[in-house]
Amino acid sequence: MENNFRSACPIASALDLMGDKWTMLIIRDMLLGGKKTFKDISESQEGIATNILSSRFKMLESFGIITKRKLPDNKKENIYLLTEKGIDLAPMVLEIVLWSDKYVREFNPQMFPISLMGFNAEKSSVIDNIQTNYRDLVRTTIG
Amino acid sequence: MENNFRSACPIASALDLMGDKWTMLIIRDMLLGGKKTFKDISESQEGIATNILSSRFKMLESFGIITKRKLPDNKKENIYLLTEKGIDLAPMVLEIVLWSDKYVREFNPQMFPISLMGFNAEKSSVIDNIQTNYRDLVRTTIG
Repeated sequence: MENNFRSACPIASALDLMGDKWTMLIIRDMLLGGKKTFKDISESQEGIATNILSSRFKMLESFGIITKRKLPDNKKENIYLLTEKGIDLAPMVLEIVLWSDKYVREFNPQMFPISLMGFNAEKSSVIDNIQTNYRDLVRTTIG
Repeated sequence: MENNFRSACPIASALDLMGDKWTMLIIRDMLLGGKKTFKDISESQEGIATNILSSRFKMLESFGIITKRKLPDNKKENIYLLTEKGIDLAPMVLEIVLWSDKYVREFNPQMFPISLMGFNAEKSSVIDNIQTNYRDLVRTTIG
């Protein structure tokens, strides 16, 4: 992947990593949902295939967006945590939510209100909250 | 597509529309590059396949993100313009650029500096500039 970028464009290069319909949902499950395990993310309602989740985890780890860990009291199961690089996707996630709320809702009326996600405050405070909560989660998880 | 959303999540729904490696590059070519024709966009350096470009144009038109027009003096060629819904993707584009500049550059060192794209000012003024310039382009194009 490292030598497989389509062009010198920052947008194209970001999409080379994250531009598919699943990767940002994994980020959502982790950053907003606090999910840490393969099992928890694979059980999300969109039904990501396990082979896709597995390959995305590998890709995200190789680009330093997530880290794989073991819990001291459970050596069998891997847990996955976002790094700062991953936590810094919060502004992008927020813009996706705001645009979707405003323009996609008419095509998908069963979309839930973004207030349920805590996305109805001022942008900078929404981002701050998300990032602070996630850093707390990391701290309490790895001690 | 309208009844084909994966879930009630705003993020998943936005990705159902825009979540692939090509759609945001078409938005880039239009919003930042001022490109208006199938030919101009198909000649971008990433080399989008014409069948993909054609299907993305149809999808973007069906969701009201772009409109298809004819110029008064050229009835043969279609031109494509972003609607306000499309112009409102500027904040998302900006966040992609900023994240990519900060975190993807190490993997793609030939990435050009974002100052070349005019993305090195304060966020709100970058977005304002992009959107004002594009609205001017629309005005001068369709009169």
